[in-house]
Amino acid sequence: MKEVIEYLEKYKDQHMEDLKSFLHIPSVSTDSNHKEDVKKAAEFVGDYLTNAGFETVEVQETKGHPLVYAEWMNAGEDAPTVLFYGHYDVQPPDPLDQWKSDPFQAEVRDGRIYARGASDDKGQVFMHLVVLKAFLQSTGSLPINVKVCVEGEEEIGSANLYDILHEQKEKFQADFAVISDSGMVAKDQPTILYGLKGFTGLEFTLKGPDNDLHSGLYGGAVKNPAMAMAQLLATMKNEEEVVQVAHFYDNVEPLSTEERALIKDAPSEDYQETTGVKETVSEKGYTAKEHTMARPTLEVNGLFSGYQGEGTKTIIPSTATAKLTCRLVPGQDPQEIQDLLVKHLEQHVPKGVELTIKREPLSAKAYKVDPDHPLITKAAESLTDTFEKEAVYVRMGGSIPVVEWIDSIYQIPVVLLGFGTPDDRLHSPNESFPIAHFDKGMKTIVHYWEKVKNLKQ
Amino acid sequence: MKEVIEYLEKYKDQHMEDLKSFLHIPSVSTDSNHKEDVKKAAEFVGDYLTNAGFETVEVQETKGHPLVYAEWMNAGEDAPTVLFYGHYDVQPPDPLDQWKSDPFQAEVRDGRIYARGASDDKGQVFMHLVVLKAFLQSTGSLPINVKVCVEGEEEIGSANLYDILHEQKEKFQADFAVISDSGMVAKDQPTILYGLKGFTGLEFTLKGPDNDLHSGLYGGAVKNPAMAMAQLLATMKNEEEVVQVAHFYDNVEPLSTEERALIKDAPSEDYQETTGVKETVSEKGYTAKEHTMARPTLEVNGLFSGYQGEGTKTIIPSTATAKLTCRLVPGQDPQEIQDLLVKHLEQHVPKGVELTIKREPLSAKAYKVDPDHPLITKAAESLTDTFEKEAVYVRMGGSIPVVEWIDSIYQIPVVLLGFGTPDDRLHSPNESFPIAHFDKGMKTIVHYWEKVKNLKQ
Repeated sequence: MKEVIEYLEKYKDQHMEDLKSFLHIPSVSTDSNHKEDVKKAAEFVGDYLTNAGFETVEVQETKGHPLVYAEWMNAGEDAPTVLFYGHYDVQPPDPLDQWKSDPFQAEVRDGRIYARGASDDKGQVFMHLVVLKAFLQSTGSLPINVKVCVEGEEEIGSANLYDILHEQKEKFQADFAVISDSGMVAKDQPTILYGLKGFTGLEFTLKGPDNDLHSGLYGGAVKNPAMAMAQLLATMKNEEEVVQVAHFYDNVEPLSTEERALIKDAPSEDYQETTGVKETVSEKGYTAKEHTMARPTLEVNGLFSGYQGEGTKTIIPSTATAKLTCRLVPGQDPQEIQDLLVKHLEQHVPKGVELTIKREPLSAKAYKVDPDHPLITKAAESLTDTFEKEAVYVRMGGSIPVVEWIDSIYQIPVVLLGFGTPDDRLHSPNESFPIAHFDKGMKTIVHYWEKVKNLKQ
Repeated sequence: MKEVIEYLEKYKDQHMEDLKSFLHIPSVSTDSNHKEDVKKAAEFVGDYLTNAGFETVEVQETKGHPLVYAEWMNAGEDAPTVLFYGHYDVQPPDPLDQWKSDPFQAEVRDGRIYARGASDDKGQVFMHLVVLKAFLQSTGSLPINVKVCVEGEEEIGSANLYDILHEQKEKFQADFAVISDSGMVAKDQPTILYGLKGFTGLEFTLKGPDNDLHSGLYGGAVKNPAMAMAQLLATMKNEEEVVQVAHFYDNVEPLSTEERALIKDAPSEDYQETTGVKETVSEKGYTAKEHTMARPTLEVNGLFSGYQGEGTKTIIPSTATAKLTCRLVPGQDPQEIQDLLVKHLEQHVPKGVELTIKREPLSAKAYKVDPDHPLITKAAESLTDTFEKEAVYVRMGGSIPVVEWIDSIYQIPVVLLGFGTPDDRLHSPNESFPIAHFDKGMKTIVHYWEKVKNLKQ
């Protein structure tokens, strides 16, 4: 292992240059003008792995952007096989005028590298590529068998990934998966993310009159869709932040005493300070931390009706629309919850308006891994050793669909080894990643591969 | 009177040509590019009155667009003086591509004249101008004293009119006022509009976090402003359409049995057919017609928060905004009602969001004239004679601020002699006015001046 760490040290500058070349490719998956750039980024990943010493490297065409698959299976049957997942595509850089440096000309300032994708997820994918290369170049082998899956459609919903994982199940099958597409709760605070929330949603519209109406001539005879919307939404959650949709909580796994203690100990940001709210809220009976990390939520993401310009326009709007999403916890089935939402809306729609519902087709089950699983404790040890600080355990309110897909298709543990920080500004102007996390992260991965090599189940 | 009617018949074609010239001037008051056109329309009115035989004609400059004042006071002290009010400015014609003919090249099709302003209000103003000219040219005099006030800022809130009416009180003082800027309940159904609603409003915003937040990371700890908005709005009106703002109904003049009978008899459109709603609603204890015509209302005119694009964006919005207006009835003071709304919002704002309120500066008191007032019964007779159909009495949910201003400044009855029809498409593409109403309307006005000449109070 010593020689791998030495290799990382020795070629540090070269790795930084290579990372910059990777970040220079504007692999914006949502923008068809960048289709060739996205392909270039896929080829970069493929070429890097070939140069690292991988013999099997495929840049697989999909219905959308390519997926890079590679494998190195020479660690022997006794060593476990890891499926490493990441994505090389990035969010659009807009609004461009808010960037202090070119989003696709990586620039180092104050110990951070600034570029679109620096943290999400090119930077973190690249750490794994370098580690694989360092092992192969310095020792000629890897401690475990490795399958690499780096896609180019994560930022557009991983439209083709599920089918690929399903159809090429044998090829991608592994003993566990590792993903580095998340973050730590704070810089230099190693974090084990052992749970994610699931997700479901829908959009619904209340239609009143065919057109906006004069509020003087028709106000009083026609139900106002905006008011109907308010009345309907207000039936869904009470003022104690408890969701009022029947059976919503029925299958929620209760929080154990141990887990509440774990959540209590988990460091977390000061919600007031980070968000600017004057006071926080929470579901009755739970702390705000418990609610965000481990209790299901229902949020209105968008709401619109009638006149939005300056001043007054005295109309009764024709329609009102709301967008809702729920974050789910283990035990809740996204489809069932969506059905419950639909049923609730249908049963509570006020008189005088017509309801139409658009179900969000994407959904995800919640994911949770046993925090005492050896693959998790070894990850925690690797982090603690490298960052010289005890790793903390957290659950997160976010959803990563691929985690649930890997869980459901392969039924293997997923280790979320995220090196980002809360200051990385993902999806925003001036995305960045701390150089120190790049170095320590690679060392963590080296340690981790060494530690898990005997964990074949 | 016979010679006046004959004059109207004889010069019918000329009047139609003159009307078209008036409609050709794009006097769009809200668009500064049309400033000169607006002025031209004012000069058209002034010149027309001069040519008609008015000796005092002023095109008064204001802080905005000119106001035309003219008077003919030779009917003697025993004859009453009428203040005729109208406006020569028009709404913008957008969206232009929806017009079947040029909005400023009046075109006659199927018995209607199509042009922006054909009904609102150039067409109706022009009827009065022609009648005044017809009297003066055919008989050399008018049966009553006439003061004319035609402004150019009605479509932008009559920004300068109140001050002018106030400052030049002596000049504009009259025994009663006549306005033709409204409509009949149906084509060929003469209508006496004896009441209008008042008006007040406000806009308010609920602020949660400083920026839109990730609904997974913060959902549960931060109050969702869109949900808070729904909960707050839902406290303002119950499902029986009764406003829940404390003291809202305190000073509402109760509906008398006579008035409920009058409303019951008033023809009205089929709300379902006109608006496309599947079922109508109404305030508990009142019919939809009573509610729209004679009971106060509270309407949400606009509502917006968070993401409005396609698909899903899993955010907690930073803010939610609603625009509210109330239509008021006699007894309710707009300022007091606005205060009650503010108080209600302040008292019911959910925990976790901050409320800011923008009060709508414009307001109007409701207006009602005694339907048995001789000035009203004479108007009804004139209409009934000309249209050969009994005039009906209605109150309307709309507000016309100038009516309240004339009422409060001069304390004189205002006769609303509207000749529009429900199909005129005011403020919309393809505005039009029936030619038959133009002819019958002018005859009605001739009769009316004759009938009221002995009504000096």
